[in-house]
Amino acid sequence: MTPEAAGGARSRRGRPGYDQASVLRIATDVFNRRGYEGTSMDHLAKELHLSKSAIYHHVDSKEELLHHALSTSLDALTAMMDDVESSPGDSITRLRRVIERSVEVLLEHLPSVTLLLRVHGNSPVEIEALRRRRELDHRLADMVRAAARDDAIRRDIDPALVSRLLFGMVNSLTEWYRKDESGDPSRIAGAIALIAFDGLAR
Amino acid sequence: MTPEAAGGARSRRGRPGYDQASVLRIATDVFNRRGYEGTSMDHLAKELHLSKSAIYHHVDSKEELLHHALSTSLDALTAMMDDVESSPGDSITRLRRVIERSVEVLLEHLPSVTLLLRVHGNSPVEIEALRRRRELDHRLADMVRAAARDDAIRRDIDPALVSRLLFGMVNSLTEWYRKDESGDPSRIAGAIALIAFDGLAR
Repeated sequence: MTPEAAGGARSRRGRPGYDQASVLRIATDVFNRRGYEGTSMDHLAKELHLSKSAIYHHVDSKEELLHHALSTSLDALTAMMDDVESSPGDSITRLRRVIERSVEVLLEHLPSVTLLLRVHGNSPVEIEALRRRRELDHRLADMVRAAARDDAIRRDIDPALVSRLLFGMVNSLTEWYRKDESGDPSRIAGAIALIAFDGLAR
Repeated sequence: MTPEAAGGARSRRGRPGYDQASVLRIATDVFNRRGYEGTSMDHLAKELHLSKSAIYHHVDSKEELLHHALSTSLDALTAMMDDVESSPGDSITRLRRVIERSVEVLLEHLPSVTLLLRVHGNSPVEIEALRRRRELDHRLADMVRAAARDDAIRRDIDPALVSRLLFGMVNSLTEWYRKDESGDPSRIAGAIALIAFDGLAR
């Protein structure tokens, strides 16, 4: 199979070496670096070393690129959450698991998650992404609520607040994580769980 | 004294009701809503109900507005940190204090801090803001390191990682805090300290 054929129908007319996935990956990085609103199709063309018309062989618009870029992390987070919710174990086990798995998904799809967390809601694509993100937030808060109901975590803090703070720690990864410097995902997931459940005090 | 005279020299020629502080406040909100790169002087003029030339009576450029907007929170955070570092008490007391005071400063200057946390580094003003932010991060990490050295917090997590996660919780406020809904600052600061030091587990 030629690289062009492997890239699927839409990329067949693209420049060799660029399938839709590569265009998407590079576009996501440019959006994160310049801000989505600060990125024009001209910027993308320059970074991709393609003409604008060559980009339009891959996607119809900058907003379609944004849609695909955001779907990468939203789909992965949704699948992970489905998986954890239907997994065996009690509520506290599931809460620990969703923290650990969230760290994994964030680091696996870091550019897409970073973009997701910076979406402003200026367009229908962004508004829909924010809606899906809010739905995930509600499911996380439900898991915290279940653990509080089972008396497995302290009940003197509102579960919605606990959920926001826990995933504030997790999401901060998009701000500071650097591959090759910040340590492996399981070490970070372990540190978050240790702080969250056992605390720092000695 | 007329409102114009109270607004200072630069605003004297501005439209009544707009001193430089008001222009700055509204501009910061627009930058947060649209993204700095996505905001043009035309957008600002429209939101301020001013002509572009009227805005130029207040500031020389969009970048000057960004500089002032970011300085608001950077100056407040720096002053708070100076204050905590020179305050009495042991290292763990100072660490608790810097968490609580950070929450206060964040909520007092929420729009400016939100903007600061989203800066991309596309211009000299942004690069300088990121440099100041990094300096604050180093001072926070030093406080965590001091508490670990004094054996006041657990030592099985790298202090730099602890610092990033703690302030990941604090900074997440810019993502979800809504006045009138999220509760008062001291309750939030208390919840963060409780999770961070004592943990959620029962």
